[in-house]
Amino acid sequence: MAATSSEDSVISLKGVILDMCGVLYDAGEDGGTPIPGSVEAVKRLKASDLQVRFCTNETQATREVFVAKLQRMGFDICVSEVFSPAPAAVAVLKERGLRPHLLVYDGVVPEFDSVEKANPNCVVIGDAAEKFSYQNLNDAFRVLIGLENPVLFSLGRGKYYKEDEGLNLDVGVYMKALEYACDVEAEVIGKPDPMFFQKVLDDMGIQSHQTLMIGDDLVNDVGGAQHCGMKGVQVRTGKYRPSDEKHPTVTADGYVDNLAEAVETILKLRGQ
Amino acid sequence: MAATSSEDSVISLKGVILDMCGVLYDAGEDGGTPIPGSVEAVKRLKASDLQVRFCTNETQATREVFVAKLQRMGFDICVSEVFSPAPAAVAVLKERGLRPHLLVYDGVVPEFDSVEKANPNCVVIGDAAEKFSYQNLNDAFRVLIGLENPVLFSLGRGKYYKEDEGLNLDVGVYMKALEYACDVEAEVIGKPDPMFFQKVLDDMGIQSHQTLMIGDDLVNDVGGAQHCGMKGVQVRTGKYRPSDEKHPTVTADGYVDNLAEAVETILKLRGQ
Repeated sequence: MAATSSEDSVISLKGVILDMCGVLYDAGEDGGTPIPGSVEAVKRLKASDLQVRFCTNETQATREVFVAKLQRMGFDICVSEVFSPAPAAVAVLKERGLRPHLLVYDGVVPEFDSVEKANPNCVVIGDAAEKFSYQNLNDAFRVLIGLENPVLFSLGRGKYYKEDEGLNLDVGVYMKALEYACDVEAEVIGKPDPMFFQKVLDDMGIQSHQTLMIGDDLVNDVGGAQHCGMKGVQVRTGKYRPSDEKHPTVTADGYVDNLAEAVETILKLRGQ
Repeated sequence: MAATSSEDSVISLKGVILDMCGVLYDAGEDGGTPIPGSVEAVKRLKASDLQVRFCTNETQATREVFVAKLQRMGFDICVSEVFSPAPAAVAVLKERGLRPHLLVYDGVVPEFDSVEKANPNCVVIGDAAEKFSYQNLNDAFRVLIGLENPVLFSLGRGKYYKEDEGLNLDVGVYMKALEYACDVEAEVIGKPDPMFFQKVLDDMGIQSHQTLMIGDDLVNDVGGAQHCGMKGVQVRTGKYRPSDEKHPTVTADGYVDNLAEAVETILKLRGQ
């Protein structure tokens, strides 16, 4: 990561955005486990002069439940620092007067409590995991194909994520399925949507060139951030695969073994 | 259908290929019901001087079981007249020494009895319907993503088909899902693959320009056949939707209300 050309950009940084699953912790049936060194790394980063926000496409729980889980793992984190797709989707639905048919994980349904859902005129899919049954996907398909102007929202477009026992399919795969079935293009809410990243920058009150994104998803974290003018670093944890470093279109500004190494390098270059 | 320009081509026909589900019968939980007039239409067609074959992407049962079901509905049909993807897939797998991980409906598994399946080095998906659970799709994904050169076969690429109570997602939708997840392009076995149609033509010993395909799927039946040089007619039964007649890239050589009308028109133009 410490190529000379990137030293200047590290020194001029004002904020860091951290992806969560695969960077802070590995998901698992028991709720997940922190990646070694990441609890301490977050603490060091927050003690520095850099602003820190967390940006996730996690849609299996409300932000409150999700943040409480991270706090139990030992992370210094609070709800207002976390940006996730469901609240952003609720804002879009209300603004456009849309009533969603939801295909999401049970845990995130409360995020949509304030949205009218009867007689749906759009479909919202999130990382529904085992709720992506044939029946449930077919129900969502029938709503879409029955609309004169089908509108599909996808909370992220990730291909897969890592859980303890291996890689698991993410929402993007089912987004592609419904896009093909109904000849529609989904509107993505969450990373790598530039509007989603912009909200995080607005919250910090800084510009994209002053910001670094650290994630395990080369395309959606790193590439998405770079597309907005940020720097993007990939960690070799979570869903990272060696082939990512030979990706045909996305090259990270740096690759580090884990978040601890990223933070160590950043703070050292900044003399902290 | 009876535009003057197509009269000549009807007169020069030597064979007709019939799609099955949505043309002969409508699928349903009780095994399905014949579309009115279709049993008689098949009988008339087979009594004419035209050769008749049946070409289906059906992969929920072996050909034997499937044909027996059609016979019970009253259709004059036998196994040797029916072309379906599973036997074609078995031939490809053996030729290339591939061992499939199968994600198919239980009923079609016996078609693959003669194929080695231990230590899989490819994935074959068919219309698995409710077997397309998250777990089963994830298992297939993990096999593919773990291969150095992922090979995915899809038995057809249909988007949806019609059952008694509405439209149901077909295998193509799950093909797109796995293609996206693994950055691969599936090899399609079945309609609209030209090699699949060619086998039917070879069996009849006639040329594509002497052949008419009748189906309810505008893209895979009609467009696929036209791509091979055949004529293609769409029936307004099965999965037909009025928007098909305004499709941006595929225009049928004729649209008829049902198979009975198609056969009536063909035989009349041929003076039979």
